[in-house]
Amino acid sequence: MSQFFNEKARLVTESIDGLQRAAGNPATTTLDGYPHIKVICRTDHKSSRVALISGGGSGHEPSHAGYVGKGMLTAAVCGEVFASPSFDAVLAAILAVTGKAGCVLIVPNYTGDRLNFGLAAERARGLGKKVEMVIVGDDIAIPGLAQPRGVAGVLFVHKIAGYLAEKGASLEVVAAAARSVAAKVVSLGISLSSCTLPGAGREDRVPPGQAELGLGIHGEPGVDQIDFRGAKAVAEILCERLFKQVGKASSYALLLNNLGSTTLLEMGVLANEFLSAASGRKIKLVIGPGLLVTSLDMHGFSASLLPLSRDYAAALAAPVAPAAWPGARVPGKLRRWKLPTGIKSKSEKPSGNASMEQFLSKCCNLLIAMETELNTLDAKVGDGDTGSTVATGARSLKAHITTLPLANPARLLSSLSDLLGKSMGGSSGVLLAIMFAAASQAIESGETWARALQQGLARMKEIGGAKTGDRTMIDALEPALAALASGKPLAIAAVIAREAAEATASMQRAGAGRSTYVSAAKLTGIPDPGAVAVAKLLEGLAAV
Amino acid sequence: MSQFFNEKARLVTESIDGLQRAAGNPATTTLDGYPHIKVICRTDHKSSRVALISGGGSGHEPSHAGYVGKGMLTAAVCGEVFASPSFDAVLAAILAVTGKAGCVLIVPNYTGDRLNFGLAAERARGLGKKVEMVIVGDDIAIPGLAQPRGVAGVLFVHKIAGYLAEKGASLEVVAAAARSVAAKVVSLGISLSSCTLPGAGREDRVPPGQAELGLGIHGEPGVDQIDFRGAKAVAEILCERLFKQVGKASSYALLLNNLGSTTLLEMGVLANEFLSAASGRKIKLVIGPGLLVTSLDMHGFSASLLPLSRDYAAALAAPVAPAAWPGARVPGKLRRWKLPTGIKSKSEKPSGNASMEQFLSKCCNLLIAMETELNTLDAKVGDGDTGSTVATGARSLKAHITTLPLANPARLLSSLSDLLGKSMGGSSGVLLAIMFAAASQAIESGETWARALQQGLARMKEIGGAKTGDRTMIDALEPALAALASGKPLAIAAVIAREAAEATASMQRAGAGRSTYVSAAKLTGIPDPGAVAVAKLLEGLAAV
Repeated sequence: MSQFFNEKARLVTESIDGLQRAAGNPATTTLDGYPHIKVICRTDHKSSRVALISGGGSGHEPSHAGYVGKGMLTAAVCGEVFASPSFDAVLAAILAVTGKAGCVLIVPNYTGDRLNFGLAAERARGLGKKVEMVIVGDDIAIPGLAQPRGVAGVLFVHKIAGYLAEKGASLEVVAAAARSVAAKVVSLGISLSSCTLPGAGREDRVPPGQAELGLGIHGEPGVDQIDFRGAKAVAEILCERLFKQVGKASSYALLLNNLGSTTLLEMGVLANEFLSAASGRKIKLVIGPGLLVTSLDMHGFSASLLPLSRDYAAALAAPVAPAAWPGARVPGKLRRWKLPTGIKSKSEKPSGNASMEQFLSKCCNLLIAMETELNTLDAKVGDGDTGSTVATGARSLKAHITTLPLANPARLLSSLSDLLGKSMGGSSGVLLAIMFAAASQAIESGETWARALQQGLARMKEIGGAKTGDRTMIDALEPALAALASGKPLAIAAVIAREAAEATASMQRAGAGRSTYVSAAKLTGIPDPGAVAVAKLLEGLAAV
Repeated sequence: MSQFFNEKARLVTESIDGLQRAAGNPATTTLDGYPHIKVICRTDHKSSRVALISGGGSGHEPSHAGYVGKGMLTAAVCGEVFASPSFDAVLAAILAVTGKAGCVLIVPNYTGDRLNFGLAAERARGLGKKVEMVIVGDDIAIPGLAQPRGVAGVLFVHKIAGYLAEKGASLEVVAAAARSVAAKVVSLGISLSSCTLPGAGREDRVPPGQAELGLGIHGEPGVDQIDFRGAKAVAEILCERLFKQVGKASSYALLLNNLGSTTLLEMGVLANEFLSAASGRKIKLVIGPGLLVTSLDMHGFSASLLPLSRDYAAALAAPVAPAAWPGARVPGKLRRWKLPTGIKSKSEKPSGNASMEQFLSKCCNLLIAMETELNTLDAKVGDGDTGSTVATGARSLKAHITTLPLANPARLLSSLSDLLGKSMGGSSGVLLAIMFAAASQAIESGETWARALQQGLARMKEIGGAKTGDRTMIDALEPALAALASGKPLAIAAVIAREAAEATASMQRAGAGRSTYVSAAKLTGIPDPGAVAVAKLLEGLAAV
């Protein structure tokens, strides 16, 4: 399975560089230790402040490099994909950013990370640095595990410790707060697929109709495979397990983390379930949904809960520099504005006009009579339904004719627009609706029928995008309306329309509509059915 | 293929509601028209300002609902997945937010959207609203197409028109600016997969090793299938085509859009290619990489270019309320800080100490001699390499013995830490390195050898996570060191270690290391190889 990178050996470093370039952030830098040492640091860190350093294998972006910046991490150490960074990379990060206030290492709990961060901490202490290490194991997937994994809940530690460090709290205070948050946060993930390892591919492990509960963020299999019964059921299972494990509190912060390829549509549905559930009432801050601690392109998500205190809430809500932090928000109550009046067209009062009624009836009869002929023509250059579409619109008009405001031209045109928009179907119905609506406004403002229809046609061309010469009904309609507008009689307009319709037979390329997909060879010699319909209608009307 | 939603009919509305809840934004609302009318509006829009309305089918999240807020859209109209909203939904949006200043409809160019927005515009005009419509067709995939598709470049229109509208510009000015941006922006996408339609699945259309160039954001097939030759080649193709089509300018804005499931790792590599290419020097603003106008979970991306003027740059850089807008940044130059000194352990000056040399040699010989026995034991309860790991460390130490600072206990322990961390391999090497580094600091501060090693062991336990009783070398090492620290002779410590090692044979569950994966039945009766190694070493040392 292809992926957008060059060589696997340069995947992580090139990605870090690209994100650094795109971030355009003058307050971060990398250390000059590629390929082995991949460290991103703040350049605006003060030595009087406690430094916060985290990291781990890559493949969890934006973690952790994305969280380097004022108010969160001072440095992030990146390993290769799903592999711990070496201890000397961690040591480089510690030495690069740790001042007299010391540093706290925030380590998501995986053996390799714990050991390499641990050894680096010892070395740094040997070099005179004050180093505290906090291990975060927030995953509750495996009950009673002595060494639970560190997953997305680590972000609560980054954020709260980062807030305190920025405020100038001492090493002891920052480390104690980080440990306290780490001890309180619980997380659980679920997925519908594994993830694609760069250069290796994806294991099809989750059978259709199943979901993996309690998977790891390195693609480790879940603890259970369960029947997948939709978003609501999934949210209920996660809520139940998380609220059972988390310490009792009156309010909680929820972090909703997209593990990779879950669409924002799905994440929205999940957020709706979590926040509208009974237990959701206790959620007073929400972080995400978003790509926060990913597992490459895994189709899954995780939820993390932290019992809230006033201090935690303030720390979580404080603004920070890193763009990857989505902010912590007080969940909103759903608001609904009433629909504006005016969406439904006012049903116009019918009004009589015998000659108009007769004229419209005649139009309808003529159009209905063309059905087969137009369909046959359209079958050669399109999808064979022009006649049916035209006849459907005409039948609907004929059925409603006595309900129309026949005595008022503007209202009549507006009603025709309504009727055809609703009943004719296809693009043509909407296009004619646009034409009649625009014509209604024109006639209202004092134009003649012919000029009003010309203006309607202009609007239809603008919206529909077809031009003269594009092999559409416009080719016949436009010159015919121009003739009528200049005072020529209907019979002349009919002749002009017919000539124009015949001329479409030699147009070798359609510029709009279904005929755009038909080759020149097949089009040649066949006139456009829409243009023919216009010609036939005018001929019929002229032949009194 | 399962996805995280409930019923398809409620997918879009539940998702909108979930994102509204999670956004916690008091300045947006939905209209009460579900399921048919799905409109998100600003509640803080002033009628003296031009309203901006966009929309289209869903499946492109965060477009367009995510961009509703101060400085961007006034309202977004959402259709079902990949289907245009109906004209009355658009009309509802227009009527809900359009004041005396009028509104501009920003419509990505697809027939259904153009027609439904167009008809809604006519109806709104008929109801007395001032409405302008701007169609955006930024896709350059199909050369010479009269009606190019609207893709991610539409965001440039949202942002620049939004900036002007917020500033109080007139309808004419805002509409003209929107048209001008729409005429200038060019976009092109490429993908390695199609997308998964909710409830329908994913078409496996792109063969391995191929990429689709010029695909549509509704999963329409690309214009070309090309050989995929990595990120650099892809960026070069896109750059070449985009710069060929775009108007000449001295600087450009680049928008890098993740179409769905491309990992942030990959997007970083792509950003690196675009921004480090020769043409990249002309890119003075970058938006993304990010999920901006997606195509569900498509594994692909698009790039959009806009020639920059000073006005455009100011408009793009202005802050806005919608969280989905990632900001426009001046691409950063890569910075590299020099690696801090102190990462490489100083190579200590060798110093002689005959008895220490003899003691260490003896340790090494004893450990090397155990190789086969320990491997055999480990084969029963682990992966059969304990003996080899121990012997590897011992051989390395033996080879370096005369290069060590044998006369200085603290430096010697620190050098042992270095040596074992580098040469022994596996977790055990790092764990011993941690122990000796911590012991070095303890002995430096005046502790005895035995007490210093005890402190080292405590640190190793803390970092490694194994406790007494977890069936590891700790079970023998801890009581033996305690005996030595309390002044007992080596022979007694050896007896204690042996007893403790034998006792591990009855521990039915390993709490750390590979034996955690082995069943109690297999463990019973077999002592832990690490604990045995400690006992045998002490026995050997005691048996002078």
